[in-house]
Amino acid sequence: MTLPSTIGEFERVAQESLAPGPLAYYDGGACDELTLADNLAAWRRLAIRPRMLVGVAERDCSTTLLGREREHPLIVAPMAFQAMAAPEGERATARAAAATATPFCLSTLATVGVQELAAAAPDATRWFQLYVFRDRGVTRELVAAAGEHGYEALVVTVDLPVFGVRDSLLRTGWTVDPELAVPSASAAGTRGPIGPAEVSELIDPSLDWSDIERFVAETDLPVVLKGILTAEDARRAAACGVAAIVVSNHGGRQLDTVLSGADALPAVVEEVSAQLDVLVDGGIRRGTDVLKALALGASAVLVGRPLLWGLAVAGEQGARRVLELLLGELDVALALAGAPNARELDASWLMPAPWASH
Amino acid sequence: MTLPSTIGEFERVAQESLAPGPLAYYDGGACDELTLADNLAAWRRLAIRPRMLVGVAERDCSTTLLGREREHPLIVAPMAFQAMAAPEGERATARAAAATATPFCLSTLATVGVQELAAAAPDATRWFQLYVFRDRGVTRELVAAAGEHGYEALVVTVDLPVFGVRDSLLRTGWTVDPELAVPSASAAGTRGPIGPAEVSELIDPSLDWSDIERFVAETDLPVVLKGILTAEDARRAAACGVAAIVVSNHGGRQLDTVLSGADALPAVVEEVSAQLDVLVDGGIRRGTDVLKALALGASAVLVGRPLLWGLAVAGEQGARRVLELLLGELDVALALAGAPNARELDASWLMPAPWASH
Amino acid sequence: MTLPSTIGEFERVAQESLAPGPLAYYDGGACDELTLADNLAAWRRLAIRPRMLVGVAERDCSTTLLGREREHPLIVAPMAFQAMAAPEGERATARAAAATATPFCLSTLATVGVQELAAAAPDATRWFQLYVFRDRGVTRELVAAAGEHGYEALVVTVDLPVFGVRDSLLRTGWTVDPELAVPSASAAGTRGPIGPAEVSELIDPSLDWSDIERFVAETDLPVVLKGILTAEDARRAAACGVAAIVVSNHGGRQLDTVLSGADALPAVVEEVSAQLDVLVDGGIRRGTDVLKALALGASAVLVGRPLLWGLAVAGEQGARRVLELLLGELDVALALAGAPNARELDASWLMPAPWASH
Amino acid sequence: MTLPSTIGEFERVAQESLAPGPLAYYDGGACDELTLADNLAAWRRLAIRPRMLVGVAERDCSTTLLGREREHPLIVAPMAFQAMAAPEGERATARAAAATATPFCLSTLATVGVQELAAAAPDATRWFQLYVFRDRGVTRELVAAAGEHGYEALVVTVDLPVFGVRDSLLRTGWTVDPELAVPSASAAGTRGPIGPAEVSELIDPSLDWSDIERFVAETDLPVVLKGILTAEDARRAAACGVAAIVVSNHGGRQLDTVLSGADALPAVVEEVSAQLDVLVDGGIRRGTDVLKALALGASAVLVGRPLLWGLAVAGEQGARRVLELLLGELDVALALAGAPNARELDASWLMPAPWASH
Repeated sequence: MTLPSTIGEFERVAQESLAPGPLAYYDGGACDELTLADNLAAWRRLAIRPRMLVGVAERDCSTTLLGREREHPLIVAPMAFQAMAAPEGERATARAAAATATPFCLSTLATVGVQELAAAAPDATRWFQLYVFRDRGVTRELVAAAGEHGYEALVVTVDLPVFGVRDSLLRTGWTVDPELAVPSASAAGTRGPIGPAEVSELIDPSLDWSDIERFVAETDLPVVLKGILTAEDARRAAACGVAAIVVSNHGGRQLDTVLSGADALPAVVEEVSAQLDVLVDGGIRRGTDVLKALALGASAVLVGRPLLWGLAVAGEQGARRVLELLLGELDVALALAGAPNARELDASWLMPAPWASH
Repeated sequence: MTLPSTIGEFERVAQESLAPGPLAYYDGGACDELTLADNLAAWRRLAIRPRMLVGVAERDCSTTLLGREREHPLIVAPMAFQAMAAPEGERATARAAAATATPFCLSTLATVGVQELAAAAPDATRWFQLYVFRDRGVTRELVAAAGEHGYEALVVTVDLPVFGVRDSLLRTGWTVDPELAVPSASAAGTRGPIGPAEVSELIDPSLDWSDIERFVAETDLPVVLKGILTAEDARRAAACGVAAIVVSNHGGRQLDTVLSGADALPAVVEEVSAQLDVLVDGGIRRGTDVLKALALGASAVLVGRPLLWGLAVAGEQGARRVLELLLGELDVALALAGAPNARELDASWLMPAPWASH
Repeated sequence: MTLPSTIGEFERVAQESLAPGPLAYYDGGACDELTLADNLAAWRRLAIRPRMLVGVAERDCSTTLLGREREHPLIVAPMAFQAMAAPEGERATARAAAATATPFCLSTLATVGVQELAAAAPDATRWFQLYVFRDRGVTRELVAAAGEHGYEALVVTVDLPVFGVRDSLLRTGWTVDPELAVPSASAAGTRGPIGPAEVSELIDPSLDWSDIERFVAETDLPVVLKGILTAEDARRAAACGVAAIVVSNHGGRQLDTVLSGADALPAVVEEVSAQLDVLVDGGIRRGTDVLKALALGASAVLVGRPLLWGLAVAGEQGARRVLELLLGELDVALALAGAPNARELDASWLMPAPWASH
Repeated sequence: MTLPSTIGEFERVAQESLAPGPLAYYDGGACDELTLADNLAAWRRLAIRPRMLVGVAERDCSTTLLGREREHPLIVAPMAFQAMAAPEGERATARAAAATATPFCLSTLATVGVQELAAAAPDATRWFQLYVFRDRGVTRELVAAAGEHGYEALVVTVDLPVFGVRDSLLRTGWTVDPELAVPSASAAGTRGPIGPAEVSELIDPSLDWSDIERFVAETDLPVVLKGILTAEDARRAAACGVAAIVVSNHGGRQLDTVLSGADALPAVVEEVSAQLDVLVDGGIRRGTDVLKALALGASAVLVGRPLLWGLAVAGEQGARRVLELLLGELDVALALAGAPNARELDASWLMPAPWASH
């Protein structure tokens, strides 16, 4: 099989091959999908001011993340139910991540258990994404398993106290194929097909800052808060002692018309980047998007849907190819922007895009 | 019958099922329909700044309106000739309103009498919308009937001194089906089919502020002025002693290129919200639109066309489902925006949408 | 024959009935037609702030123009070669103008002579538009004839020293049908079909401000300069003693990407409206456009292409209907904007359109 | 054969006649082609403020470039592999340039040798564009040949240290037809078809400012740096003693989302125009684009793709016709803008386009 040569082609092929329900789940966003579209558009509203003649024979895109050196700033975002895209599901994605030195973040709502995934991709740098369930016992077990099986960070998602309004799911009546196991949900007692109502039923809407303080105190793993969009909340997160923040709107899937990660990033960086790592996700499709995130002060970016397209098109190989394409583009972007060492990037490389800022 | 699962689907189904004339009347706007389109776009030009981790297990969207507590901030806007959409017309809409604790505003140009509607929906909170006719005797009778039959407010529409230029009506030659009764028009002597010219003929173009002062003085009901778009006029309305203002451009149906309610709202709120209730209408299609109106200082919002779509698709059940969908979305929006008590919303939850404010 | 009920319908029907050459000549603009499109868009970038409850039973749209009272602010713009649209050509348009109390401006490049037009439409208020020919003898004769036959103003077009680049004419190879007489060109010695090159050949590209001074000194008629777009040129025109200026870009037909009349108007009004009348043209399609021009300080507006559509669809009756539609819309707009006397309009009725000014 | 009458028609005909690979190479841009599109849009975001009545019977668009008088400000941009468009390739383009007094810039990656081109178009003013190869010996030979054969300037391209990401090439798998000779590549040892990887392999990514200083010191020819987009780099170039800068983003083909030449130009002009000539390229399609570049302070503009369209449609005659069309449009633009002497143009002729600057 010849793999697609661009991420755009992966997207097209994946959209043709996925069944309507999983496609709606993967690609859809909240309500009118304005935020979904803006996640991509926001990066396009930034123009690059490239520097010439600095000598770019060698490029270095390494970064420091949670106190460790990383070869590059990409991370596989937590995404639920990956077995809907390919039989190997999260296992394949994690192996693709391992092959490209990319940290892999396992979703609470994975179609594989915490331990099984670790066994399937022992070489992957693994993080665990946590939805805090109403059933705090199961929640504790999940966190404990992550600690036991070598996961290096706990990514607590804070922007899904209830499931968002997603017209595409309402239209298709999507639920997870009952033949696919979702171990965390089973442990918490969910029976029957999992759809939006079941997810809402699992997750605790009363979660608040005091819970975060407790997690930080009780967990050995560094705690990363995912879903912060304002400087106010970032300051509060820093006060709780979290190790990092992911500036994110949950891929445009939760509350439509919230601002994008790209637009929320500068204020958060200004507020807390001296105290913790700031990551960002949403709409990363090109190497130039990654370059812009770094220039705005992010330490790393999470990549989501493109991995699912890769997975849907060609399993582990597809997911790996998507990561390689992005890394290749990032390398070219650093060369052409005159920033062979990515750590040199700062806001002087960017300006509001004239095509958007009129 | 399976009801549509989103308001967008209600719109599509309704547009396919309505005859060209009623469809043009319901959906059309003035001239080039720029204001019609902007009524929706204006809400989309506002982005939400959501707050996380505040604990949202319980949400409360209650509001205070005309001195009374209301469960939620939705009101059914006055809309004429509802029997064009479904045989039960206003009766069905009012029952749907009653079932969802939504005040129902009866149009002067209803296809049902003031008393009949009250009898058909005795549980509905009812308001009466008044077009001041050239025939002041009939006008007085209508107001008196509203008072006698338990209507709780008098909503005086001030932005239709003459009927607007609506190309879609000129093209379709729309008139109300002569078999449908319009009691107010009959009382005022209209004979033959009612079209734009007949409406203009009924309504008094000389209405001015002195008339409003008189209405306030002579009526026991609270007087609400509907159709104000400037702070100047809002101040004048406050000086007249009205109980509330509806910031509105008549659904984009009267003067094209006037500003939207959403854009007119902040200046009006700043000018008079200490003295009276400020309501808004135009383009409310999502729970997030309602949230934004509240954050801008509105006490409530009027919903129009979506009710007609519900009515056209499935009568009372359709109208009720539309209201339930909007209320459900509002509930989710409050949870996801981190404003479990809607009364806490203020302008800090909003910003100009980056996708529109470039 | 049933006449179209909107100007938009006139446009559609005319575009289907005109031959490609004349259609290209009438509807086309310069190069990429950005200014052509912007002439319409510029009015749409202005929003109206309407006032309510001022009593609008009577509306008055009269204006004072070149020292005379006019019933309304519309003028038929000078347009060449009108016999391409209908056999009666300028005669029909002038009669339609007379029937609606609209001044008619005859083009130098008319398909009728100055005297013949006067004879054909004796009741029309007639102005004469002057292209200054290289042949100054013919130019003088044209001006003299205008004076003799009751034309009330001399409108000197200053923005066509050479013929603009119009792709649509290059593509269609348009020329005036040789069977149509163009008396002015014949008098100046043009032989064979008239196309862009022949027009350029007729007109004197060396025209400058000293010529204007001489015209003002030598002519009894008030001199109107048509084609001014900057305050600098307006000041100079005032210094020359002209009676009025038409802020115009020649219907987007001359230099693409110049600004629109609507956008150029405020600076010109501020500069010279104390000394002379400021008129505007370009893109007037709606009564609200006229209202906005008046609110920006124009004394009157010239209407062009819509008249040609009326003429092409139904000759004199079509042109008349177009004028009546516009006047009807203006009347409604005054009522709905709360400006029953058009002379009260000022900039407080306008604001940058929120849908365009983000 | 009848030649197209507009550049737009040349584009359409060429796109239909070129094979997919060459078409992708010529027309494609980097990644999502945002910068490619913006190169055209940027000129359209500038509006012209035209002056009237200045007397425009004679127009003069001459300019001074590298110390020499030129009849007009157009230059044929360096473009690789022109034999893909027509058998005569660069020879035909150079002859078209000669026929219109336009300097012709030969690409390093031409499908003709430096000497052969000089022999084929002895009357053309010739410049040589230099990619600095890893093989510095071949590089020296190319520069020496340019000097020997009467090339008047050395245009060093600095924005291609590596080949950009071009989806259209990845999709089509484009390589240069192996039957076409690329003498420079052959001299440097390239074997087999030339595609993106081969170009990257040829060019030295370590090029830096010290190399430029050396070129200036070692070469008799004036050195022009092509590919500068910031004032910082322009200042550095001036310090190196280069004779001119071409503000350019390589036709949108290298790093997507960099700013356009039109937008980068003003800051560069302000920084260094007192010391060296500033040229610009990217998106020049109309005479008004040239006028705007001059008004922003450019001494000349490079024209690229339109020449390839002319070449593809009709060889030398097509390329010549394209240049004549542009020069004709520039002449008309000067007349209609009231700038009969192009050297008088300055920023007062421009304003942000109202249609874009809202």
